[in-house]
Amino acid sequence: MSGSVPTAAGARTGVWFLGARGSVATTAAVGALALADDLVAPTGLVTSLPGLADAGLPGVGDLVLGGHDVTATPLAKRAEQLADGGVFPRALVRAVTPGLEQVDGRLRQVVAHSGESQRGCAARIEADLHAFREDNGLDRVVVVDLLPTRPLPAPHPGLDDLDALEVALDGPDEVLPASSLYSYAAFRAGCPVVEFTPGPGPRLPALQQLAEQQGLPWAGSDGKTGETLVKAALAPMFAARALRVTSWAAMNILGGGDGAALADPGAMANKAQSKGRVLPEILGYDPEAPVVIQNVADMGDWKTAWDNIAFEGFLGTRMTMQFTWQGCDSTLAAPLVLDLARLLAAAHAAGRTGPQPALGFFFKDPVGTGDHRVSAQLDALLEWAGGLR
Amino acid sequence: MSGSVPTAAGARTGVWFLGARGSVATTAAVGALALADDLVAPTGLVTSLPGLADAGLPGVGDLVLGGHDVTATPLAKRAEQLADGGVFPRALVRAVTPGLEQVDGRLRQVVAHSGESQRGCAARIEADLHAFREDNGLDRVVVVDLLPTRPLPAPHPGLDDLDALEVALDGPDEVLPASSLYSYAAFRAGCPVVEFTPGPGPRLPALQQLAEQQGLPWAGSDGKTGETLVKAALAPMFAARALRVTSWAAMNILGGGDGAALADPGAMANKAQSKGRVLPEILGYDPEAPVVIQNVADMGDWKTAWDNIAFEGFLGTRMTMQFTWQGCDSTLAAPLVLDLARLLAAAHAAGRTGPQPALGFFFKDPVGTGDHRVSAQLDALLEWAGGLR
Amino acid sequence: MSGSVPTAAGARTGVWFLGARGSVATTAAVGALALADDLVAPTGLVTSLPGLADAGLPGVGDLVLGGHDVTATPLAKRAEQLADGGVFPRALVRAVTPGLEQVDGRLRQVVAHSGESQRGCAARIEADLHAFREDNGLDRVVVVDLLPTRPLPAPHPGLDDLDALEVALDGPDEVLPASSLYSYAAFRAGCPVVEFTPGPGPRLPALQQLAEQQGLPWAGSDGKTGETLVKAALAPMFAARALRVTSWAAMNILGGGDGAALADPGAMANKAQSKGRVLPEILGYDPEAPVVIQNVADMGDWKTAWDNIAFEGFLGTRMTMQFTWQGCDSTLAAPLVLDLARLLAAAHAAGRTGPQPALGFFFKDPVGTGDHRVSAQLDALLEWAGGLR
Amino acid sequence: MSGSVPTAAGARTGVWFLGARGSVATTAAVGALALADDLVAPTGLVTSLPGLADAGLPGVGDLVLGGHDVTATPLAKRAEQLADGGVFPRALVRAVTPGLEQVDGRLRQVVAHSGESQRGCAARIEADLHAFREDNGLDRVVVVDLLPTRPLPAPHPGLDDLDALEVALDGPDEVLPASSLYSYAAFRAGCPVVEFTPGPGPRLPALQQLAEQQGLPWAGSDGKTGETLVKAALAPMFAARALRVTSWAAMNILGGGDGAALADPGAMANKAQSKGRVLPEILGYDPEAPVVIQNVADMGDWKTAWDNIAFEGFLGTRMTMQFTWQGCDSTLAAPLVLDLARLLAAAHAAGRTGPQPALGFFFKDPVGTGDHRVSAQLDALLEWAGGLR
Ligand SMILES: NC(=O)c1ccc[n+]([C@@H]2O[C@H](COP(=O)([O-])OP(=O)(O)OC[C@H]3O[C@@H](n4cnc5c(N)ncnc54)[C@H](O)[C@@H]3O)[C@@H](O)[C@H]2O)c1
Ligand SMILES: NC(=O)c1ccc[n+]([C@@H]2O[C@H](COP(=O)([O-])OP(=O)(O)OC[C@H]3O[C@@H](n4cnc5c(N)ncnc54)[C@H](O)[C@@H]3O)[C@@H](O)[C@H]2O)c1
Ligand SMILES: NC(=O)c1ccc[n+]([C@@H]2O[C@H](COP(=O)([O-])OP(=O)(O)OC[C@H]3O[C@@H](n4cnc5c(N)ncnc54)[C@H](O)[C@@H]3O)[C@@H](O)[C@H]2O)c1
Ligand SMILES: NC(=O)c1ccc[n+]([C@@H]2O[C@H](COP(=O)([O-])OP(=O)(O)OC[C@H]3O[C@@H](n4cnc5c(N)ncnc54)[C@H](O)[C@@H]3O)[C@@H](O)[C@H]2O)c1
Ligand code: NA
Ligand code: NA
Repeated sequence: MSGSVPTAAGARTGVWFLGARGSVATTAAVGALALADDLVAPTGLVTSLPGLADAGLPGVGDLVLGGHDVTATPLAKRAEQLADGGVFPRALVRAVTPGLEQVDGRLRQVVAHSGESQRGCAARIEADLHAFREDNGLDRVVVVDLLPTRPLPAPHPGLDDLDALEVALDGPDEVLPASSLYSYAAFRAGCPVVEFTPGPGPRLPALQQLAEQQGLPWAGSDGKTGETLVKAALAPMFAARALRVTSWAAMNILGGGDGAALADPGAMANKAQSKGRVLPEILGYDPEAPVVIQNVADMGDWKTAWDNIAFEGFLGTRMTMQFTWQGCDSTLAAPLVLDLARLLAAAHAAGRTGPQPALGFFFKDPVGTGDHRVSAQLDALLEWAGGLR
Repeated sequence: MSGSVPTAAGARTGVWFLGARGSVATTAAVGALALADDLVAPTGLVTSLPGLADAGLPGVGDLVLGGHDVTATPLAKRAEQLADGGVFPRALVRAVTPGLEQVDGRLRQVVAHSGESQRGCAARIEADLHAFREDNGLDRVVVVDLLPTRPLPAPHPGLDDLDALEVALDGPDEVLPASSLYSYAAFRAGCPVVEFTPGPGPRLPALQQLAEQQGLPWAGSDGKTGETLVKAALAPMFAARALRVTSWAAMNILGGGDGAALADPGAMANKAQSKGRVLPEILGYDPEAPVVIQNVADMGDWKTAWDNIAFEGFLGTRMTMQFTWQGCDSTLAAPLVLDLARLLAAAHAAGRTGPQPALGFFFKDPVGTGDHRVSAQLDALLEWAGGLR
Repeated sequence: MSGSVPTAAGARTGVWFLGARGSVATTAAVGALALADDLVAPTGLVTSLPGLADAGLPGVGDLVLGGHDVTATPLAKRAEQLADGGVFPRALVRAVTPGLEQVDGRLRQVVAHSGESQRGCAARIEADLHAFREDNGLDRVVVVDLLPTRPLPAPHPGLDDLDALEVALDGPDEVLPASSLYSYAAFRAGCPVVEFTPGPGPRLPALQQLAEQQGLPWAGSDGKTGETLVKAALAPMFAARALRVTSWAAMNILGGGDGAALADPGAMANKAQSKGRVLPEILGYDPEAPVVIQNVADMGDWKTAWDNIAFEGFLGTRMTMQFTWQGCDSTLAAPLVLDLARLLAAAHAAGRTGPQPALGFFFKDPVGTGDHRVSAQLDALLEWAGGLR
Repeated sequence: MSGSVPTAAGARTGVWFLGARGSVATTAAVGALALADDLVAPTGLVTSLPGLADAGLPGVGDLVLGGHDVTATPLAKRAEQLADGGVFPRALVRAVTPGLEQVDGRLRQVVAHSGESQRGCAARIEADLHAFREDNGLDRVVVVDLLPTRPLPAPHPGLDDLDALEVALDGPDEVLPASSLYSYAAFRAGCPVVEFTPGPGPRLPALQQLAEQQGLPWAGSDGKTGETLVKAALAPMFAARALRVTSWAAMNILGGGDGAALADPGAMANKAQSKGRVLPEILGYDPEAPVVIQNVADMGDWKTAWDNIAFEGFLGTRMTMQFTWQGCDSTLAAPLVLDLARLLAAAHAAGRTGPQPALGFFFKDPVGTGDHRVSAQLDALLEWAGGLR
């Protein structure tokens, strides 16, 4: 894409969800449609804050939504299930059902072709992205990864080097994990990528090389909602007061698709690792900080986190802080997904390429920055956004 | 005091506690002595952080301690009581007992003289301050108010205007509350004042005029420890994520002298008001936010706060965060008192006068600033301290 | 009523709610109708447990509902408001709306007649009860007090003695509080009374004399839901293990009609006193145990209780237990109201008179018994119910 | 032992700890000595309650303590470590140090003899028990298992049948886990056994046969302290109110020896299974109820449990209760160990044999009873104790 493309606000922007019928994507779709029709206030949408609302981003109601999924359940049906789980009111689903049906028409089902090489699969994904852009007259398409969390891939030379990767993709092995295969296709199709899961998606060195080659910006990884967000807000307080955290134990109970996915030890290890960088970076030392993630189907779409923070104060006196966080994960994640799509579209329009550390505000494991402090990240985001126009 | 006075680090600095035998002052004394002898790490001491440790402040172990109280219980005895309550180890008390006895020798008992005017009382206080400075060869003395919290004073013209105050002080009425009478005497004696309680201390307009006249800096008010500190760390997170706080209910249970004092409804109203400004300033709107303070003698020197935060996210979905804070108030407050004495001494040495908004980091109700965000306050403090030398 | 009246199960039983358009009564009505139509399981209904379900009680779906209120809002409208507050699903309201409209037809509005004596008012209430019984061919009517909590009445000789009361009722003074005036009328009309609020209702000595005279059973007072229920379940554990509770501080935040009513200090004092008997009776000593009730309108129909229990174990070691209880008060109270109506109807049919201590299981301040232990109360209830047939 | 042995109260009773230098045993020793010298109140000692204090049990101060351990750290040193961890005051350790040194003299170190059969090891243990009884002129010795929790043993015919076991003990295999080998030796030496860990100790069928043969009583298993105790106190409340528990998720963080031992997945599985029977037995159905045990060394001798209970009430409305329990495990366990030793000694004196279900009050996994309700268990215990004299 070239400089003749209109500015972000004036351009037609598409958002392509990977896992488009999942909880987060469905909530994002319901929300985007509800905001387009002024049915709700933009609560939870960071890009509605002063300094971002006026930064020339594409309007949230103007985003054209599409995506891939392996299932074919209609979005309105998924939305009703989420409404039954208390994620949003039933009445809202009824109001946006026509819009959801339109989005349904733009979703593509991903089916495994037996014996196909990964290159073949990537080509089909790439074709779907091109078709989405053309059919809808879009100036650009941001791809957002909302696939289930999976274990990290086994080491392979193709992960580290683009040339080696190109060779490997023609072979019989599944060298790339799903999230990265999609990123590969997205970059080839000229699309910026938001990695909202623990990834790895675009983070593999080989894919970073590809993004650079294509002149594309990307952001990630692992949306920071709930417990990790609170950690990133609270830990600076302990640091600022010279209070020494001696342990910070965290327990998460959650149901839903995410709960089921994280019941897999490999996936959980990936997630826990992504969460694990916040404390040492903020505190400057590494307290004992186990993170337990426990699937409790009964929790449905809701998550409860409980953290127990033991810390030492003046003269070595030991004190304790505990918190519980009772949140609806899709509610927390969906607006961030829309925020990131808008911001990365604007970054693309402004010619930014490569990883975008200023978007670290949104992520548990922010690429290109070691600053996990919520306040400092917000400052960085606002400054960066101010420079986009 | 003039420019010929040595720099803060080189000067001899005295600290004069009002309420010198109280929990906070005793803990500060034990801590200063323990730090002087390298018995403990400077945990909890903000001025031990990079950017402050090297800002040319007087050494914490070099501070010369004195103060007023109405009781005469020896400091070592008070320290033993606090050790029994788990505030610090008994062994530490034994190690610093000789030092505490030296401080005892510098404390002055305040006795009410029946029929005396407030001017008479102020004069006696002023004389004590002069004597402390001279007897100990001090370059400057910082006065720190650690008196019990009291109801706010009834309106009187003398509170608003220095000339009217001077007239009123000769009359028979108690126009000034204790904290402000001490501030009056301190300013007259050329001493900077830290108002660590809800005050009003030096905040009355008449006293602000006096500080200006005397060219003295002062700071306040109400040390920010525990629940309010957590509020000021967490509320910016909700704001940054455009999450709408609909209520934030707070319950504090505490014993000790402070618990008993706050069982008085007037004192509690003063304290609750001081706490009440944090949320509206940070959030930009004023959610329902009752603060209950309940005396539970059984808690001793410990306080437990419980906060229930209800907030709305995307599409109006209601979520909840709760925290408990189990802290030892004197442990949390004492290092801040030493921090403030060091910082205000340096400000005085640097010729600063009037209220010091950059010290707002330490206070629930910071004078001269509406910014209550912990991170922003730390940035302001570090910048200010960098300019002191 | 005489022995020729049919047994409880065979008889037609009316339930007359005082405060019939309030949250608890409306929820009880929705539930009774839903149970009559088998739309829901009897979750929360104690009388559905083995030992009670088969005790010959009137069927919950057979109860004929009526009542008094001062407002005239249709029940279906109140039910919709409660559904919006998450008390039950909207779909359920739609399903029972015809039934609610029938109940509406049996409700009577209470209007103050200026200058009327309390006897005049009582006579009108009594007439309404007679009419309800006759119009609906009922064998008996149980009156259930669900009025807002009010301050305790000022002392008056008429409260203590029935003869003095009869004289006073003709005078101009409001000698009886509302709950007791209703009880007076109910007893005169031959109706057993359930006092579900802190009362005093039928507990005044004068009214106890009247109940005895009329040969009527009654039960009370103050439904035990939420925090007090948990207290009564947990305190026996500390006692059984010889652990010494040194303080038990309780904070309740709640909105709704009840929250607003309890914002009145007199009403709150009445409520807190009613809650205050549980611990000393169970523990055998009286630990520091403040109960704070705080109105937070934002909580709507939901209540959150937080309790902090400090206790001493072996060798004096201090430990802590905390709990939070996030409950919907009307959901918790409504089934108990139906339980009590069924049980008191059966008691009446069995010829029981006077206060019924075996119903103490349901109350914070059980009449005629000092046993507050949930398990022991359940045993007593089951034994008593076994003897009713 | 025969009928000529004196009654429990008059007899000389020995208590032999397996794991005698561990946290629980050391705390029990400190406590027994402190109680003997009237230095502390019997807080936490169930046998100090009315109905047990007067049941003719051996005096707690009269118990003669001995035991086995693999380490040789002096008890006074272990006690000092525990005092540093806040388990009891340092002053108490000083006061009982002479007594601890006497106990030290009665402890025997267990050393592995390479190539020895399990029979050989059992014989040495048995000899130690005989020597303890004779050297101290004891009428009976109760053996209490306080070994670290271990994985359950692999199946083997010798576990199920005494004859097969006798054969296997001569062979080269380690057929019995440590806890059961000690039980074997104890029963052979004529000693009743308390299984305070998840075992299996005396619970193996082969050992039950041996206990029966020897006419010995025994009790177990897994002391019920902390979270499981609270569960057993709270679950009956939900059942009594017909509230439906849909999930009960539990998280435990703990340090100390027990935390380290439970970091082993096999040991944790054994512990979790032992905890897992409480809810289904009390509720009558089996809600989703994961129990997570997480080692956090920083917690030292303290454990914090957090439980999140989701339940349904009337009309299906979902509510939540949460609790935290901040306890010192050794403080909670040690008095129960003394209780059990006293009670089992009295049972032995009264000629009781086999498993003692009435002692289920003390255990997570009570042998011979499915009743886990704290209140019902206390009733059973009191009745049983009343029949012992
Ligand atoms: N909700 C949050 O707060 C949050 C925060 C950070 C990260 N995340 C991550 O976001 C992701 C999405 O979460 P969710 O709750 O929506 O999960 P979900 O399980 O509801 O949705 C995942 C969707 O991906 C689809 N899918 C699976 N494999 C696919 C494939 N190969 N190609 C295309 N589609 C495929 C599934 O059919 C499903 O519809 C998860 O990885 C989660 O960890 C969520
Ligand atoms: N600890 C905290 O976290 C914290 C935080 C903010 C503010 N504060 C405030 O600090 C103050 C001190 O707290 P504390 O716990 O040390 O209280 P405290 O009750 O232990 O000590 C107060 C001392 O003041 C003395 N005193 C009373 N009247 C006096 C008078 N007229 N002149 C001189 N001395 C007098 C008392 O004898 C006592 O020794 C309180 O106002 C408290 O609200 C404490
Ligand atoms: N919900 C619980 O868990 C619980 C537990 C114990 C006790 N209670 C008590 O039950 C009572 C009812 O609670 P609620 O939540 O339904 O309250 P509510 O305020 O919703 O209902 C009270 C009703 O009484 C009506 N009323 C007021 N004055 C009246 C009068 N003089 N005559 C007739 N009607 C009158 C009001 O109009 C209202 O409709 C309260 O006293 C509460 O304290 C409730
Ligand atoms: N504390 C509680 O609340 C509680 C409750 C229920 C059960 N328990 C159980 O009680 C047991 C003891 O707990 P603790 O905290 O005292 O543990 P601990 O680790 O402090 O003590 C165990 C002791 O056993 C010794 N030991 C190990 N192997 C041995 C062997 N083969 N022979 C003899 N001694 C040996 C160790 O050296 C150590 O001194 C654990 O199994 C724990 O699970 C404790
Ligand atoms: Na204090
Ligand atoms: Na209510």
